[in-house]
Amino acid sequence: MSQVITFGEVLMRISPRGHKKFIQSNMVEFYFGGTELNVGISIANFGGSVKHISCVSDDFIGETAVSYISKFGVDTSALCFSKRPLGVYFFEVGAVMRPSNISYNRSHSSFSEILPSMVNWEASLEGGKWLHWTGITPALTQGSFDTLKEGLKLAKAKGFTISADPTYRSGLWKYGKDPKEALTELLNYSTIFIGGINEMNEVLGTDFSYSNDDFIEASKLLIEQFPSIEKVFDKIRTSVNASWHKIRARMWNGSEFRETEDLDITHVVDRIGTGDAFAAGLIHGLQELDNDYAAMEFASAACALKHTYEGDVNLATVKEVLGILGGNTSGRLNR
Amino acid sequence: MSQVITFGEVLMRISPRGHKKFIQSNMVEFYFGGTELNVGISIANFGGSVKHISCVSDDFIGETAVSYISKFGVDTSALCFSKRPLGVYFFEVGAVMRPSNISYNRSHSSFSEILPSMVNWEASLEGGKWLHWTGITPALTQGSFDTLKEGLKLAKAKGFTISADPTYRSGLWKYGKDPKEALTELLNYSTIFIGGINEMNEVLGTDFSYSNDDFIEASKLLIEQFPSIEKVFDKIRTSVNASWHKIRARMWNGSEFRETEDLDITHVVDRIGTGDAFAAGLIHGLQELDNDYAAMEFASAACALKHTYEGDVNLATVKEVLGILGGNTSGRLNR
Amino acid sequence: MSQVITFGEVLMRISPRGHKKFIQSNMVEFYFGGTELNVGISIANFGGSVKHISCVSDDFIGETAVSYISKFGVDTSALCFSKRPLGVYFFEVGAVMRPSNISYNRSHSSFSEILPSMVNWEASLEGGKWLHWTGITPALTQGSFDTLKEGLKLAKAKGFTISADPTYRSGLWKYGKDPKEALTELLNYSTIFIGGINEMNEVLGTDFSYSNDDFIEASKLLIEQFPSIEKVFDKIRTSVNASWHKIRARMWNGSEFRETEDLDITHVVDRIGTGDAFAAGLIHGLQELDNDYAAMEFASAACALKHTYEGDVNLATVKEVLGILGGNTSGRLNR
Amino acid sequence: MSQVITFGEVLMRISPRGHKKFIQSNMVEFYFGGTELNVGISIANFGGSVKHISCVSDDFIGETAVSYISKFGVDTSALCFSKRPLGVYFFEVGAVMRPSNISYNRSHSSFSEILPSMVNWEASLEGGKWLHWTGITPALTQGSFDTLKEGLKLAKAKGFTISADPTYRSGLWKYGKDPKEALTELLNYSTIFIGGINEMNEVLGTDFSYSNDDFIEASKLLIEQFPSIEKVFDKIRTSVNASWHKIRARMWNGSEFRETEDLDITHVVDRIGTGDAFAAGLIHGLQELDNDYAAMEFASAACALKHTYEGDVNLATVKEVLGILGGNTSGRLNR
Amino acid sequence: MSQVITFGEVLMRISPRGHKKFIQSNMVEFYFGGTELNVGISIANFGGSVKHISCVSDDFIGETAVSYISKFGVDTSALCFSKRPLGVYFFEVGAVMRPSNISYNRSHSSFSEILPSMVNWEASLEGGKWLHWTGITPALTQGSFDTLKEGLKLAKAKGFTISADPTYRSGLWKYGKDPKEALTELLNYSTIFIGGINEMNEVLGTDFSYSNDDFIEASKLLIEQFPSIEKVFDKIRTSVNASWHKIRARMWNGSEFRETEDLDITHVVDRIGTGDAFAAGLIHGLQELDNDYAAMEFASAACALKHTYEGDVNLATVKEVLGILGGNTSGRLNR
Amino acid sequence: MSQVITFGEVLMRISPRGHKKFIQSNMVEFYFGGTELNVGISIANFGGSVKHISCVSDDFIGETAVSYISKFGVDTSALCFSKRPLGVYFFEVGAVMRPSNISYNRSHSSFSEILPSMVNWEASLEGGKWLHWTGITPALTQGSFDTLKEGLKLAKAKGFTISADPTYRSGLWKYGKDPKEALTELLNYSTIFIGGINEMNEVLGTDFSYSNDDFIEASKLLIEQFPSIEKVFDKIRTSVNASWHKIRARMWNGSEFRETEDLDITHVVDRIGTGDAFAAGLIHGLQELDNDYAAMEFASAACALKHTYEGDVNLATVKEVLGILGGNTSGRLNR
Repeated sequence: MSQVITFGEVLMRISPRGHKKFIQSNMVEFYFGGTELNVGISIANFGGSVKHISCVSDDFIGETAVSYISKFGVDTSALCFSKRPLGVYFFEVGAVMRPSNISYNRSHSSFSEILPSMVNWEASLEGGKWLHWTGITPALTQGSFDTLKEGLKLAKAKGFTISADPTYRSGLWKYGKDPKEALTELLNYSTIFIGGINEMNEVLGTDFSYSNDDFIEASKLLIEQFPSIEKVFDKIRTSVNASWHKIRARMWNGSEFRETEDLDITHVVDRIGTGDAFAAGLIHGLQELDNDYAAMEFASAACALKHTYEGDVNLATVKEVLGILGGNTSGRLNR
Repeated sequence: MSQVITFGEVLMRISPRGHKKFIQSNMVEFYFGGTELNVGISIANFGGSVKHISCVSDDFIGETAVSYISKFGVDTSALCFSKRPLGVYFFEVGAVMRPSNISYNRSHSSFSEILPSMVNWEASLEGGKWLHWTGITPALTQGSFDTLKEGLKLAKAKGFTISADPTYRSGLWKYGKDPKEALTELLNYSTIFIGGINEMNEVLGTDFSYSNDDFIEASKLLIEQFPSIEKVFDKIRTSVNASWHKIRARMWNGSEFRETEDLDITHVVDRIGTGDAFAAGLIHGLQELDNDYAAMEFASAACALKHTYEGDVNLATVKEVLGILGGNTSGRLNR
Repeated sequence: MSQVITFGEVLMRISPRGHKKFIQSNMVEFYFGGTELNVGISIANFGGSVKHISCVSDDFIGETAVSYISKFGVDTSALCFSKRPLGVYFFEVGAVMRPSNISYNRSHSSFSEILPSMVNWEASLEGGKWLHWTGITPALTQGSFDTLKEGLKLAKAKGFTISADPTYRSGLWKYGKDPKEALTELLNYSTIFIGGINEMNEVLGTDFSYSNDDFIEASKLLIEQFPSIEKVFDKIRTSVNASWHKIRARMWNGSEFRETEDLDITHVVDRIGTGDAFAAGLIHGLQELDNDYAAMEFASAACALKHTYEGDVNLATVKEVLGILGGNTSGRLNR
Repeated sequence: MSQVITFGEVLMRISPRGHKKFIQSNMVEFYFGGTELNVGISIANFGGSVKHISCVSDDFIGETAVSYISKFGVDTSALCFSKRPLGVYFFEVGAVMRPSNISYNRSHSSFSEILPSMVNWEASLEGGKWLHWTGITPALTQGSFDTLKEGLKLAKAKGFTISADPTYRSGLWKYGKDPKEALTELLNYSTIFIGGINEMNEVLGTDFSYSNDDFIEASKLLIEQFPSIEKVFDKIRTSVNASWHKIRARMWNGSEFRETEDLDITHVVDRIGTGDAFAAGLIHGLQELDNDYAAMEFASAACALKHTYEGDVNLATVKEVLGILGGNTSGRLNR
Repeated sequence: MSQVITFGEVLMRISPRGHKKFIQSNMVEFYFGGTELNVGISIANFGGSVKHISCVSDDFIGETAVSYISKFGVDTSALCFSKRPLGVYFFEVGAVMRPSNISYNRSHSSFSEILPSMVNWEASLEGGKWLHWTGITPALTQGSFDTLKEGLKLAKAKGFTISADPTYRSGLWKYGKDPKEALTELLNYSTIFIGGINEMNEVLGTDFSYSNDDFIEASKLLIEQFPSIEKVFDKIRTSVNASWHKIRARMWNGSEFRETEDLDITHVVDRIGTGDAFAAGLIHGLQELDNDYAAMEFASAACALKHTYEGDVNLATVKEVLGILGGNTSGRLNR
Repeated sequence: MSQVITFGEVLMRISPRGHKKFIQSNMVEFYFGGTELNVGISIANFGGSVKHISCVSDDFIGETAVSYISKFGVDTSALCFSKRPLGVYFFEVGAVMRPSNISYNRSHSSFSEILPSMVNWEASLEGGKWLHWTGITPALTQGSFDTLKEGLKLAKAKGFTISADPTYRSGLWKYGKDPKEALTELLNYSTIFIGGINEMNEVLGTDFSYSNDDFIEASKLLIEQFPSIEKVFDKIRTSVNASWHKIRARMWNGSEFRETEDLDITHVVDRIGTGDAFAAGLIHGLQELDNDYAAMEFASAACALKHTYEGDVNLATVKEVLGILGGNTSGRLNR
């Protein structure tokens, strides 16, 4: 597999153990994450070659982040460093009907300083074939939007496959740019759309429903308006409660609609990064597997498996994901 | 909300982490609790003003208890101190069909020394409007019965609302007093009865069944025999196993019978203090919400949420409880 | 109860806490186990007198193992010591559809050195009435096969009841001996067969199905071919996923077929050692309870309860197992 | 003792346990601190009445901070809340010749938003007699300088004792204000100067040496130039290495120079907040003890004791500090 | 070595990790101890055969205590069980000049119920040759005094060596018995006196100083007044501070005065149980080594080594103690 | 700096936290180490480019090891994988006069299988300039000796600098090879000798004393007999006890004898890997610093700093080591 490039903020996640709240214990755990990095690390865990581009703090927390990324074999040579602190988020894991809580400290982070001049895209894209981006990055600052756009432009020119997960999070987007306009600009460089009805309605200005028929219509309209986009993949979560979810996926690849069965996750360990696990599964599958449906099935099983790992990152290997697809969903012991 | 007064023993709870037994690990966690304190802290977490009255040990464990109570903003100014040690209980959390185990060390605790002369009820009740008691306190010693009774008498005279959770635990009541007689005496000062068929049968000497019809009959009889009592609220637990419970509630407020839907708690984290969470929800709801049914619904959701927190105390806020009532039982992430 | 003798390797189990993988945290927990030791400790927890025979390392890890075994009151006086290290296994607990992973480091362990000359069977069996063995021990080395065989021969001569759990694990058996031949030799000393269709097919060279009819046929054939065997007990696991199992048992005691109801384990804590818990329950039950069916029911409930304890060993007492059989599967609090 | 008011940023401190670095373990502990809050909590631990004024985040981290402050009985009623995140610092504890490392994330914290309009000084100072400030607060933002100045002006007018610890930290002071000018302005409201030669040279523009003679000369000049200042107290640390320090103190109270003996701290547990412990000891001592020297001795012993507690805060009681002064420096067991 | 019998209360010790206070963390560790049990376990760690006699609680805490004692190979067959809870003590480890704090919860513990009728001394002493007691046991209740006395009387009659560590702790002795009188009675059965000037002054009613000359005089007087006593051993601690101690020992064996060199313990890990380690070393040494001086040297090194282990119990082996005596005090690595 | 190649076994180290023994807690920590890897990681922490060559297990423990090595930026591309388990060692940290204990489980590890055919030395050495080896590797198996020798031969031919740390550990060397002969063979390829009198006496068959004069004589003789060797560096440890060491170094570089001052390490955190930190400091210094003495000083300070980190590996940066050399041995806080 040729190299996949991911670009986005690296965040330190700090959480109490288990289901505790911060008020209950002064002992907490940290991981590093960030939606695009999560995708990158998961692909590396599938055996892929990955480079992550970001800007981290020039202190021992930044060093710890670099070391964390290196630990998974992701190439850190294109990271840049800033005097500002690394972004942090605090996370309390919910249970049953209790929602999880997140509090971010990222608005003046090291990544918030990023500018096109700080990333050597020409050098960074060398040897790569795939670039992945999400809707978080353009939502942060003008600099992060500009830097991403420059990367996409160059990658497009070099013939990269470009996957977009244009998650729209309204709490971000504070620097003045109109979200719809920004995402429209960036989607024009993209070839794979990873998102559902909400994301399509956001960029199309429509109000399609969640039905499969509407999904197909929306996908067709999306491809019409963004001719570079070839395929649309959507992951659907049904939550019984915070501890019990179901996952399935559907796709429109320009000619065919397909849908997977629900995977039942009766005991959710950690739902952070499960969308990223889906994207990573897709990027792996579209490169390595026979067809789009096989890729989507792989992505869906990868996503389901991520719910069983603590932290932001899917630790599953290809063999483990294929095990699920091969019907081993009863969790037999591997000796 | 005017101040709620709670009175009762403060216990230190010591448990292994997760599902371990003491024999498995020498690393354990402690919390503080006690049924009336749990009610008080939960009301404080709902934004209420609360004062807890008790007697704790005059050593670094007592200091730690005071600091724990203060941490939740509960007023500790009326606590008294004793040379005896704080009561302790050891707790092993069960799972699935394995029951939890409790072992108490409370019979000669600091609270067991309490006497009417040690509590200045006149000063302590100033600024309050509500007093809450449970059947644990009169079961401990003659002194704790007398002290409680003196407080109830004064509170009644001052026009307080008085809520009673007359839990009957037969393992206590060792100092000679007849439980039925004692509870009868104290219920005559009370206005809100929080308890079910077992508690009513105990004080009425009847044997009503668990049916709704019998619940209504029992409530009517109770109100007849204890004319100060205005309303009866009952929380009903159905246990699939130690890890999977359902909670609903019913009430008779003198004129109307109502019942809530079951709330399904598929992954119980900790069931200690869930009855106290119900009582606290009720005390909050009866003061702040539109009607008795709304209060009971709030109490029931508060009780369900408590099952998701480790420790004795409900950490939920009003907003979180209302979230459940608003239909968000799927535990979506709060960003 | 007269003394039960267990013979087999003692392994150190090292696992991350909760559902973590080794790559996620450098803090791990250790226990000691080994299938025969697990049986022995569980019987000791039922109040039985047990002696475990093995060979452990002559260093602080071996000392820690001895101390762990002593902690449960199991007699360690017949252990021998070796300059080689104690066997170790690393274990990552799965969840939902994620399988658990095991990695062994046992092939040159202290136990792998064992030879008939190192165990004084005459002295060790004194005061005993029951010897338990499993298919793991003969699979390890010629020495362990020989030592076990010598013990069985003597025990048989002394009129011991001999229970066999002839688990067949194909990854072992590397020293040249043919598994079927070895197990056949050893089963000829045994009186109780604890195993299912797979184990019977293995030693009989048949291919019976999992149906009850086939189970009965297989059992009859087994008893025909191994006349010392009197009874066959089989534990059946149905896995919804790694976190949700069901357990039931069936038996053929030469004259009667019986089957228990499924016990539903909705939240599996740790499945290691659950088969050993079944065997221990059976050994206890066949000695202490009224009949074979009662023993099998006890064994089945013991097995189910083991799923709720971390580590290799069933910590349940007789009272706790009987509680389940008495219908208390809702996990009520024991005060 | 009448109420002491402290004003300053509340920071969350996150550190690995023991001597570990972040790169070594993902399990860390958090405390809350901040130089002025440390002083306030220590005074509360001496039994004093304390109110802390600050601006914390309006999320579960801010709630946890409030709860932490309440736990020590410090009045939190004057705290205000901001949408920005609470300031954080990461801390790696050094050992022997290895220095400790600190990395701050505070430049856009909730406190950085503070403005005079957000603090009701009139109400907040009611019932108080003493206000304590440090050189950190005016170094942060124009708003924090202005807010502090307004408080000092009012406190001065109300006849408060005002203690200043004008620590000069050159890494701060980024908003444009000249440090010397700012400190000069604020010192003109102050009555007790807690600082050494460096701080005096900074505000006087002199270059006195560390000798006692120079200390006396510098103090005299300081009092001449800042006539509101009555007394100067200086704590002197001699470090053998990161794990072995010595502490002594000296003073000039306008008429008398005194110096304490070195206290030898052979095994430093945590040196953060030891200067704050000195200031707190002084504020307690100047109110409660016989004379300035007794206050300084108390402060010096308090400072030494703080080196034995983990976290930012001195947990010692008056009795424990007096124990040291009474000659019990051998750490006998208190039963 | 023939069996050593120890008799006394088993206490659960609960402490925060490291130097933390209870107020700082809700995660704590527990051990079991008690002065006589500590002696017993240490002797077992030296390879001795030991039986401990006590009364523990009949619940899962008592079971955990029994399992803890068994873990070290100490015979638990003579323990009795009570419905009262096991005694507990809470312990905060000091550092440098900060004293450690202890708080006991033992006055109504399971051991406080002990009566002569509950111990079968005849059976318990069978196979033993040595009985060890301390001044804690007679200080607790009339029942514990009586039970001990009965055991001593029988042991004396059977020709046991009886070692006494008559520690006088004034905070105990609340049941009415005069300490001097009680100790006098019990010392009349004893042959080895382990104690210093304070203990001798207490029982003799004298006021000898700490000098060697006075030690010799006091010992002579003691032996005169208690003719069964043959030898006196005294351990002397010099504390630089809570983290730095020195240990030496001296003896009068009726004919000879000897003294050991100071052992310098520069980094005390845990000082609880160090006196018990001395007693255990002595009991081992007097049985196994050449002469009284060798025994005292062994005891002194054992005592010093105990300062390096967490918990109440000396975990050192004979080989490790002899290593110290052989001059290896530089802590070289044992491969 | 051009790439440094290290070759040797990777071991998993498992230890209790703090000063605990395995018998005291079932919670332990793991790190990875191995003398040559420790050198490699330390050089990587100094900013050097490093490749480590070894053979690890083909399971999740091997993966965790690879991830650990990658985390420090060390090149893992030349690692090979084996079906055997990774070597393990168990380690109990001593304190004061208590020695640390080590127990190895390495004799049949994945590395023990290594053969020349498994390492592509030609490819592996490409881009390198320096190869480091120690006396542990040739002591393990014939295969490891042969593989190392082949690497040395090729590296020598390519003009590499070859540093040798010929530590002689008599407990190894079990496969039949004569240590002196083996080391002699390998030293003939080496240019830098890192070792002291013991190592020189071992290979020379002499018995020089520890004096500086003897060190010079021995070094001269060594260079005479091994003409490829150019320089000899010796690190000298003086242990006050297990918690208090002193470190200095001396050298003979063919023309000059130099010696550094003692560095006093009053509170040793972990002494494992301190010799490796010295070697790494030397390899860094000889490449980057002005002269041999500067390199030795750097190495000595690096070695001293390592005593302050838990685990096998020196985490110090160049800046931190230079800080010590610049006189900052008092551990001031780095903000």
